[in-house]
Amino acid sequence: MTLINENFLKLSESYLFTEIARKVNAYKEENPKADIISLGIGDVTQPLAPAVIEALHKAVNEMATAASFRGYGPERGYDFLRDAIVENDFRAHGIDIVADEVFVGDGAKSDTGNFQELLGKDVVIALTDPVYPVYMDANRMAGRTALVKLPCTAENDFVPELPGEHVDVVYLCYPNNPTGTTLTRGQLAQWVDYALEQDAIILYDAAYEAYIQRRDVPHSIYEIPGARECAVEFRSYSKTAGFTGIRCGYTVVPKDLKLPLGALWSRRQATKFNGASYLSQRAAEAVYTAEGRAQVRATVAYYMENARLMRERLTSMGFKVYGGIDAPYLWMQTPAGMTSWECFDWMLRSAHVVCTPGVGFGCCGEGYVRLTAFGTRENTERALRQMANQL
Amino acid sequence: MTLINENFLKLSESYLFTEIARKVNAYKEENPKADIISLGIGDVTQPLAPAVIEALHKAVNEMATAASFRGYGPERGYDFLRDAIVENDFRAHGIDIVADEVFVGDGAKSDTGNFQELLGKDVVIALTDPVYPVYMDANRMAGRTALVKLPCTAENDFVPELPGEHVDVVYLCYPNNPTGTTLTRGQLAQWVDYALEQDAIILYDAAYEAYIQRRDVPHSIYEIPGARECAVEFRSYSKTAGFTGIRCGYTVVPKDLKLPLGALWSRRQATKFNGASYLSQRAAEAVYTAEGRAQVRATVAYYMENARLMRERLTSMGFKVYGGIDAPYLWMQTPAGMTSWECFDWMLRSAHVVCTPGVGFGCCGEGYVRLTAFGTRENTERALRQMANQL
Repeated sequence: MTLINENFLKLSESYLFTEIARKVNAYKEENPKADIISLGIGDVTQPLAPAVIEALHKAVNEMATAASFRGYGPERGYDFLRDAIVENDFRAHGIDIVADEVFVGDGAKSDTGNFQELLGKDVVIALTDPVYPVYMDANRMAGRTALVKLPCTAENDFVPELPGEHVDVVYLCYPNNPTGTTLTRGQLAQWVDYALEQDAIILYDAAYEAYIQRRDVPHSIYEIPGARECAVEFRSYSKTAGFTGIRCGYTVVPKDLKLPLGALWSRRQATKFNGASYLSQRAAEAVYTAEGRAQVRATVAYYMENARLMRERLTSMGFKVYGGIDAPYLWMQTPAGMTSWECFDWMLRSAHVVCTPGVGFGCCGEGYVRLTAFGTRENTERALRQMANQL
Repeated sequence: MTLINENFLKLSESYLFTEIARKVNAYKEENPKADIISLGIGDVTQPLAPAVIEALHKAVNEMATAASFRGYGPERGYDFLRDAIVENDFRAHGIDIVADEVFVGDGAKSDTGNFQELLGKDVVIALTDPVYPVYMDANRMAGRTALVKLPCTAENDFVPELPGEHVDVVYLCYPNNPTGTTLTRGQLAQWVDYALEQDAIILYDAAYEAYIQRRDVPHSIYEIPGARECAVEFRSYSKTAGFTGIRCGYTVVPKDLKLPLGALWSRRQATKFNGASYLSQRAAEAVYTAEGRAQVRATVAYYMENARLMRERLTSMGFKVYGGIDAPYLWMQTPAGMTSWECFDWMLRSAHVVCTPGVGFGCCGEGYVRLTAFGTRENTERALRQMANQL
């Protein structure tokens, strides 16, 4: 017997973005004058919406007097937020979700990472390849090694094929991180049908939902008939409203699931979590006001204009790029047969642009890098110029 | 094979405080006019310190412009906070802890709940009885059933005896939740010696450290020689500074531990957590300013005056009470041989006072209830009068 959880030793030594930060810092130390632009980690750059700022100041003031002070919040989140979520994110789109199915948390990373705790140790889990590393690493930490990979490459237009074998759980992330590609309503419906037929659970990460532009791309898996019986959905304010530093998100666990995952998630969160900050919950509520919505949409449009510029200019430079139409990510084929990390090094050293090596998201990411549209316009344009100068 | 984690099914149906809330709500529905005072859940009632409010407004303003906006924070927390922690909570007391050993999180509940993930499945874990339910439930969720109980009762003055057998991990919480009792420096040194001798790890929860009054009670386990080689310490701003709704805490994982727990915790947090809110971290930093410290101390003194009144009056009513000298909790023997839940019902129905049944913290808590000093002065005095009227 060993004292530590040996599954941790089977992971790559560091989380992907930790490794990138290490490499960038090392380069900066050697080249202190290099003006490095990050299009790597998916962090936002635009400030919070004025409606959110106003809500935050108001919430801070509430904490200043005993009469309006708030301590521990309700376990599943405040009603003011859960009601706003249900009304705006679901009912307004004709989707039947009730407040009791909504669990407010501190972000989709925590929730998608922790949700696997509710599953049996030997369940068969399917993941796309490339994939957001959190799903993979969280399952490996729990000792699950029987992971079915669903390749997503240019050859299949980044649409994963249904598994030929039975799987118990499928993680799907659409709009996709890292490829920036999407599924149409019809393509997602095939997955819901598969899950219903196989008694499988879909863990659906819709963190980038706000970036969808095209009408045939679903914003929620619950737009698909039958999804209430087989799907859990994760949402986040990080990218929707720039909350990467504020921390708030939510998870929908419908009561129609065949497994009692709502009760189990409730028990898990009540035991090992103490709620998102009251301030963050008030900030999230403000995203749903008329002003909040308009301001947040304008910021999304700003990033999507970056994405458009990146697609256009990279294509005209001769790069092959995917995604970036309904998502803030572009998935770029590496030039001249470079590996992902070779391309990362080349871009860092020659153009001073940080990307994310595709292979960090899985074997099928080899030969690609991920670029994000979350920069400022100025930095995005400068990065594109610096890349053009290297060709 | 089952799809769900069956360990969850072996837990009591709900988290203790969820169950209490359910009972209180049911009573309120039947008796809408009853003026119920909660001395049950350990939530604070006094507002945030003015220095904290000021820091929060300032941090909110930073989020309003692109130049000062903050997105994802550093994985282990911002340096401004980790440096303040090291300087004020450790170096000022002659304790040798460095910033690299400090991991900022969203509270001690999350951290004490999640830390067991780093341990092997079959480690032998010792817990006091009564115990904060999070330690127990988190381990049961992970399938650990070989738990060694360390009884803490009036007979042993609530000081747990060293296990007669080998254990790998010991959870200690001092000042104690729920009993409100403490260990002297000498008593804690015996545990450190035991851990060093047995190659065991002590998970030391010091969430109530700010309430310590007596000089022979250690504020940190690192006051004890050898603790850097065997102990992890959890700290929280929830009770220290009223952050139950703000969410911030930290965990110290020293580099001298024989197991690589720092590296593992870093990997766990980088994968399944995305940091405490920037606002919460700025709020925590303000607790260490001269004004912040003085304001926070005044609030602790306010609660401790509640504790003194409760001890004095309950004793004069003939109740036998423990704790409440270096902690915001009083541990009261139930009168007339009542069980904990009978006493809970009696206090709710007759005096309209909510307590926490001791048995909810373990078998050795049967025959006790926990009362908190976190009420307002007015409510605390009223609760005491209502109890006196029932006798």
